[in-house]
Amino acid sequence: MQKKCRIEDAIGKKYPESVVLVTTCDRKEKANVMAVGWVAIASGEPLMFMLGIDDGALTFRNIRQTKEFVVAFPNEAMGRETLFAGSNHGHKMDKFEDSGLAVQKAVKVKSPLVRDAVANFECRLAKIYKPGDCPIVIGEVISAHVNRNASLKRLYTVGKGHKLAGVRKH
Amino acid sequence: MQKKCRIEDAIGKKYPESVVLVTTCDRKEKANVMAVGWVAIASGEPLMFMLGIDDGALTFRNIRQTKEFVVAFPNEAMGRETLFAGSNHGHKMDKFEDSGLAVQKAVKVKSPLVRDAVANFECRLAKIYKPGDCPIVIGEVISAHVNRNASLKRLYTVGKGHKLAGVRKH
Repeated sequence: MQKKCRIEDAIGKKYPESVVLVTTCDRKEKANVMAVGWVAIASGEPLMFMLGIDDGALTFRNIRQTKEFVVAFPNEAMGRETLFAGSNHGHKMDKFEDSGLAVQKAVKVKSPLVRDAVANFECRLAKIYKPGDCPIVIGEVISAHVNRNASLKRLYTVGKGHKLAGVRKH
Repeated sequence: MQKKCRIEDAIGKKYPESVVLVTTCDRKEKANVMAVGWVAIASGEPLMFMLGIDDGALTFRNIRQTKEFVVAFPNEAMGRETLFAGSNHGHKMDKFEDSGLAVQKAVKVKSPLVRDAVANFECRLAKIYKPGDCPIVIGEVISAHVNRNASLKRLYTVGKGHKLAGVRKH
């Protein structure tokens, strides 16, 4: 049986849910990484992701400049690195260096793959929409990679709102 | 370490992930329900959901006609009903009657709440985009409800592609 409540209380029921890392680079090929919790598939053929990425994020600026990015699924041992990427701003630091995330060269884009992720998806920017208070970035997947260790599992978030407040194993 | 692979193989790594039920009604207030796996938050203030809903679905026709719907989070004991809603077409049957899903009256929309869900969100249609092969429906949440039983947990899907191929407890 349902009881009416405040919208902000009900939405807490969506957790745990999966979280992704988004890597980008600027015009000088300096890489950045952020954590994104508002993410889903937007198209099957071609495969596309839709991602909520804040206007003020360095990631958003980089995507608008280079029209490309990588979506990575962190593995369940990457809670610390994912929290770091989701709680700090790339404008102020080198998030790859400071997070300890290892990278690997991508095939079709300049943004790096996350070496220890479960999977990585190289994306070309397809569209940016803004239905509410956050830009929705649509990326078409142009190349994909999986970890050589096929037994790795994805990380899930228990965070709320725009910030990634916590992570847990599935 | 990453190895390049086919896009369709890599995307299988996204499961398990959360799944929602979407309820709608037609102009005569006949209700329908479907399961949606391509779903995420699109805006924080106001709260909006973005959902991939197939052009051919009765749900899509109903949303275009009535401009409203309900997003419900099924609980982990609702695997059978959710699979049913995700594997059958409302054009051919009364999915509420045949699925055994109990309903409850909403406050601001005519689409019903799912009585045993973890939470229900009454939505007004805000936008429809089509970046790829699937319409992306944006709904603004105008009222929310949670189950009186606060210990209920959400259901997760292990399905692939457009169809919901299986469900599991988190």
